[in-house]
Amino acid sequence: MQYFTDTDMGLDIGLVNAAVESAFADHGRGLVQMPPKIYVTLPAGDFRTMPAYLPSLDIAGVKIVNVHPDNPAKGLPTVMALTVILDTGTGKPVAILNATRLTDMRTGAAGAVACKYLSPKKEIVLGVIGTGKQAEAQVLAISRELKIQHIKVWSRDISHVRRFADRFMEFPCSAGPLEQVCDCDVLVTTTPSRSPIVRDEWIHEGTHINAIGADAPGKEELDPAILQRAQVFVDDPAQAVHSGEINVPISTGLFREVDIAGTIGEVVIGKKQRRDPDAITVFDSTGLAIQDLAIAKIAMQHGKTFELPFP
Amino acid sequence: MQYFTDTDMGLDIGLVNAAVESAFADHGRGLVQMPPKIYVTLPAGDFRTMPAYLPSLDIAGVKIVNVHPDNPAKGLPTVMALTVILDTGTGKPVAILNATRLTDMRTGAAGAVACKYLSPKKEIVLGVIGTGKQAEAQVLAISRELKIQHIKVWSRDISHVRRFADRFMEFPCSAGPLEQVCDCDVLVTTTPSRSPIVRDEWIHEGTHINAIGADAPGKEELDPAILQRAQVFVDDPAQAVHSGEINVPISTGLFREVDIAGTIGEVVIGKKQRRDPDAITVFDSTGLAIQDLAIAKIAMQHGKTFELPFP
Repeated sequence: MQYFTDTDMGLDIGLVNAAVESAFADHGRGLVQMPPKIYVTLPAGDFRTMPAYLPSLDIAGVKIVNVHPDNPAKGLPTVMALTVILDTGTGKPVAILNATRLTDMRTGAAGAVACKYLSPKKEIVLGVIGTGKQAEAQVLAISRELKIQHIKVWSRDISHVRRFADRFMEFPCSAGPLEQVCDCDVLVTTTPSRSPIVRDEWIHEGTHINAIGADAPGKEELDPAILQRAQVFVDDPAQAVHSGEINVPISTGLFREVDIAGTIGEVVIGKKQRRDPDAITVFDSTGLAIQDLAIAKIAMQHGKTFELPFP
Repeated sequence: MQYFTDTDMGLDIGLVNAAVESAFADHGRGLVQMPPKIYVTLPAGDFRTMPAYLPSLDIAGVKIVNVHPDNPAKGLPTVMALTVILDTGTGKPVAILNATRLTDMRTGAAGAVACKYLSPKKEIVLGVIGTGKQAEAQVLAISRELKIQHIKVWSRDISHVRRFADRFMEFPCSAGPLEQVCDCDVLVTTTPSRSPIVRDEWIHEGTHINAIGADAPGKEELDPAILQRAQVFVDDPAQAVHSGEINVPISTGLFREVDIAGTIGEVVIGKKQRRDPDAITVFDSTGLAIQDLAIAKIAMQHGKTFELPFP
């Protein structure tokens, strides 16, 4: 059994995007096994357990990932993850990966795949709400699929915006109020908000939105009126209903499961698509265990490893 | 983060029994978080993912365990397990344990706790059906709680019976046909059978049965008529209905969820008990993630460790 650390070193983002796209396609064709992720609540956060089997890559395993918002004050990341990989033939554990940075990358890749298929423009003004690791990962991954002309960015803390802009010197970057940032071609929302911060009237026709932040019951970033006039694509219906951007509007009756336009997997295989260039499209990303397996497959060819005795 | 290997070395069985008993008590009082285990099917077997949080021991984590019946022909155990332990304050992974032998031990402990509370006799003739690792673990654990006067054992393969008897020189041990083995005070069934092998007419009044073998949909060892006249206690109702001894009789209508007499946790805290000395009691053990956390807590004080960098 091998332990992989520093697993994002040298990973090619284009390769990761392609692997996640392929995993979505398998999901769209019903060729994966992936029960909905399970939540366990801890005193100051929670952890999620994500098992799956992806036959096309001959890989099976479980990601375990926590969310603890107060961790940074203790010098630890909010989100930390570990992936255990099993041999598909014998069930034997063959690898354990530090998957903290892999989690950011595979979420970025999901957003990039959504943009590739759902953005009507290939050269875009990118609006970014939130400036954390997820926002960075979205920009890095999307830039491989679309040409970013300009980034508009908003954060509650202006110093965070400056740090974010410094990180992406290759793109013209401007700070602005929320309304101005929402005036863009592709909008990415990456906050832990529990009430809508993006208003319906700020979103114009033809916009594609990656709704990344909502990943637990009670979280939402978008005015439900946006969802009502948009085509809403999800990564996985069960997970999205439970904990995605649509979870609150569904619980309040402002959105229904039958209103989901399709899954991103169905979009990738051509079964579902953007209605017309003027439609608003939303990708509700909750994060799939098969994304974690797809990126683990790549990371296992790169990371630094320790050999561990098992059994 | 630490990796623990050889984690059963030096573990005191009495300590493990007590830890599992205490975890059952917490379960009976509703003081644990433990979603039902999740099954993922692989080509030649399956793996189960078992997350939980046990506040009384301040421990949280996930066991990942496979079942691959054809593994022995490949030189690997049928069942292999790994437990990941998270810090309850921050969600950070702090330990990974090789949990293969711990899984046997904690299952043995569950059977021992059931015997302690449900066997009307303290000195017993023990009937054992099946001679694998689970059977051995049951005998070792039960012998700490009750005085075993004699063991009667049955296996499809007589050479297995001999090996089993050699393992337990301290107890008089005799091989016999199934009917004779079932004439005992405490019966332990540990086979992977998919049709009943213990007939109703073989079980006399006052017998306690640990039904250990059935751990997946479709598996059963006992004639459903036994369940109909017995008090059936389960470790966890949701898991038992899905994959325990009662799963097949429930799906065929020969047993109902409302017929469950209670949980072993309710027995341990005195909320439920054996009706009278002549009742037949059955403990349907599916294996709980909190058992794995309880034994991990003990094992982390003993195992050989490797230090791993995380994050």
